[in-house]
Amino acid sequence: MRQELFRYQQVERHVRHLIESAAVGPGERLPSLRALSRKLNASITTINQAYLELEKQGLVEARPRSGFFVRKQPSCSPPVSVPRPELEPTLGNRGRLIQTVLSSVGDPNLLPLGVVCPSEELLPSKALSRLMASVLRDSPCRSIAYETIYGHLELRRQLAFRALDAGMSVSPEDFLITSGAMEALYVALRAVTRPGDNVLIQSPTYYCFLQLLENCGLRAIEIPSRPDNGVDPADVAKVLQRFDIRASIFSPNFNNPDGSLASDEAKQEVVKLLAEAEVPLIEDDVYGDLCFSSRRPRTYKSFDRVGMVLLCSSFSKTIAPGYRVGWMLPGRYFRQALEVKTVTNVCTATPTQMAVAAYLRTGQYERHLQRLRAAIEKQMQTMQIHIGNYFPAGTGMTRPKGGSVLWLELDESIDSVALFYQAREAGIGIAPGAIFSTQDKYNNFIRLSCGALWSEGLRNGLEALGGLIKEMQR
Amino acid sequence: MRQELFRYQQVERHVRHLIESAAVGPGERLPSLRALSRKLNASITTINQAYLELEKQGLVEARPRSGFFVRKQPSCSPPVSVPRPELEPTLGNRGRLIQTVLSSVGDPNLLPLGVVCPSEELLPSKALSRLMASVLRDSPCRSIAYETIYGHLELRRQLAFRALDAGMSVSPEDFLITSGAMEALYVALRAVTRPGDNVLIQSPTYYCFLQLLENCGLRAIEIPSRPDNGVDPADVAKVLQRFDIRASIFSPNFNNPDGSLASDEAKQEVVKLLAEAEVPLIEDDVYGDLCFSSRRPRTYKSFDRVGMVLLCSSFSKTIAPGYRVGWMLPGRYFRQALEVKTVTNVCTATPTQMAVAAYLRTGQYERHLQRLRAAIEKQMQTMQIHIGNYFPAGTGMTRPKGGSVLWLELDESIDSVALFYQAREAGIGIAPGAIFSTQDKYNNFIRLSCGALWSEGLRNGLEALGGLIKEMQR
Repeated sequence: MRQELFRYQQVERHVRHLIESAAVGPGERLPSLRALSRKLNASITTINQAYLELEKQGLVEARPRSGFFVRKQPSCSPPVSVPRPELEPTLGNRGRLIQTVLSSVGDPNLLPLGVVCPSEELLPSKALSRLMASVLRDSPCRSIAYETIYGHLELRRQLAFRALDAGMSVSPEDFLITSGAMEALYVALRAVTRPGDNVLIQSPTYYCFLQLLENCGLRAIEIPSRPDNGVDPADVAKVLQRFDIRASIFSPNFNNPDGSLASDEAKQEVVKLLAEAEVPLIEDDVYGDLCFSSRRPRTYKSFDRVGMVLLCSSFSKTIAPGYRVGWMLPGRYFRQALEVKTVTNVCTATPTQMAVAAYLRTGQYERHLQRLRAAIEKQMQTMQIHIGNYFPAGTGMTRPKGGSVLWLELDESIDSVALFYQAREAGIGIAPGAIFSTQDKYNNFIRLSCGALWSEGLRNGLEALGGLIKEMQR
Repeated sequence: MRQELFRYQQVERHVRHLIESAAVGPGERLPSLRALSRKLNASITTINQAYLELEKQGLVEARPRSGFFVRKQPSCSPPVSVPRPELEPTLGNRGRLIQTVLSSVGDPNLLPLGVVCPSEELLPSKALSRLMASVLRDSPCRSIAYETIYGHLELRRQLAFRALDAGMSVSPEDFLITSGAMEALYVALRAVTRPGDNVLIQSPTYYCFLQLLENCGLRAIEIPSRPDNGVDPADVAKVLQRFDIRASIFSPNFNNPDGSLASDEAKQEVVKLLAEAEVPLIEDDVYGDLCFSSRRPRTYKSFDRVGMVLLCSSFSKTIAPGYRVGWMLPGRYFRQALEVKTVTNVCTATPTQMAVAAYLRTGQYERHLQRLRAAIEKQMQTMQIHIGNYFPAGTGMTRPKGGSVLWLELDESIDSVALFYQAREAGIGIAPGAIFSTQDKYNNFIRLSCGALWSEGLRNGLEALGGLIKEMQR
């Protein structure tokens, strides 16, 4: 699967692993060109190219006549802690703060450590634009007409085919196309709840879910999300006994912000528990395709035998955020979902659906994913090393196996909302931990995005951010 | 403004008016080629071409050596009656029926008398496709990126400029771009109401508004809409005294289905009354640009001095239904509207916004509108004449000055839902009156769309429909 990478990139990856895993420590000498050439069966030129690339990233340094050395101490960050939220149904209360953060994370003048989207350079904008132009030329009338409310049939066919990768055997008729995954989540939530209902979520969770709950007058009940394995089925079982819960929203694959990935066993158990309690499970899978392994993880939906999982996803993190092409598999709630979608905006835009369908049909998506996964993994590793270098010792950090964000635990004395404002002043966009929960459990956490291409600007930004944190800690 | 029409089309229009107004009765002789040539200052060839066109439409017949005659009795249909709905807050109850109708009005196998959209041939699909291709070629990265939640700036600039035509002086910052007008209405309604609230609507009203109210748990209070002048301010005043009303939704310009157009005086008065009572007025203006006069009517919003009108509109009836490009002017409810839009789908698709902005910038829209208005007016008049011919005597019919639908009152014995099913069996799509109100006031009404290009198939369909009605009446 990884043959798509240039040979030198594979070497580069190998060396980064050596550094990141501390197999070769700070200041220590890295394997010689010749040794690595033999070991990896690559030419000396290739090995050299990889070392030069790592030197540009500031990870290694060349010493005349001595070879390449690990440049600095990438401190071995501890994992983040997992606070236990209170088991209390809580009405949303973060709306105003989230709106403030949202209005500045997208600010093009800020260093994009707050925005989750992959950098434009990593997305197939030209291929998509060419395909869209050709689709419009071939079907001008079709492209301006209403699409059916279900969505473009060829797109649903392609999605049904791709669903096999996530362990799901579904047909085109099971899908409902939406304007992005957020709309899918909104439609799902409106389809299964009424104002005042309790909704089970993981903590921390994506702040837009909190906004959505608040806007719909729903109460959040939070259970801990563990960076290493996400939601614990035992927590789900406990909460189901104590509260009347009408829906749940979980992100089992690379939860935003803690990057957690639930095991297949945990997924199966959670699906079973919720089905027994007749609680619809709204599954957010937008990062599922952004795994760093060659095989993407399964979904809750793939374990669903009774139609109670409503899967929601999109191409916003992998192809084109601005196309607003998402989808849902609403299971037994199909009719209710259809009704909400109808009164919300009748149907999703036609040309973008046609272009994405055409793109999937060409088979380019799989190849693109390989490159995108490798690029984001590399960016994330580089970020981790530099955070280790520039942030105070003891800063906790996640080690996600996919997605595109890092979740950092700072010293307890740090107020991340104050840090957010200070960083903004310094031209750096970050997401403060407080917005990822209705409770004050993450006030000293921040989320950093690894979507942007690595650059000197990012390095400087991380250094400056580390400086700000050190100052606040005094 | 009408110079855009071919000369023969102007002549054709003149003659159709003669027939429709009954200035020349059925079987009577129409002005000779020579007389009309002198009167209208057009060549004999032009006049002849117009008569041949009218002959094709089945409106006139040529008799050898005698000239052209009006072909049949276009019965002079009476206006429709205006039932008074009960003044009772009513929870939606038409959802299932509306869903059934909706699922078949879009059926491509049915004669499209139920679909409101203009026929594809009347829309600028090629020009738009070319512009979209060029926009994507020039800005591939921009076109796949998220748009701001407010919407594409150039689009909002063009909209602000065009708003002057409707009597509104607004700036780009006042707009929020939505995925079609339906989303604008949904966002507006969610921004100003909570479940259980009373909402004032006109009766009959567009059935999607009823679906929306039902879905949001809102109660409808209906006041009569008069085909000649829409909502009467006196009715508004009366209802405001009796009920606690939290929002109102009106379509002052060519209300769907009765085609009513409110006068400027009525608009001004309604805006004033609602503002005094602090009731937000959600204005649907999707048909405002489809007036048959050369100058489009003003909006409620143009009389709004305090920001309590939330104008909603789109290009779905004039350019490209499938692009899902709509907008709203939420006035003082801007922040609330923004919040609802954010949690619904973050922002509207980028490429379609860019293409519509580019189209408006070329100045083609105004020229296109002239042609579209003339085409729909002609189709409507032709429909009216044939309905007069084929439907039972006494069938009531509206005479709208814009929009694209006719509202027909059949004999009291007719159940229009039964007729809907029978017509569907016969391959004809219509909209039964029952879906345009929460009350049983329009069971013998139907709505027919004039969006499709006139054809022999439509003529046959109207004849068959007239036959079905005559049979049911027995």
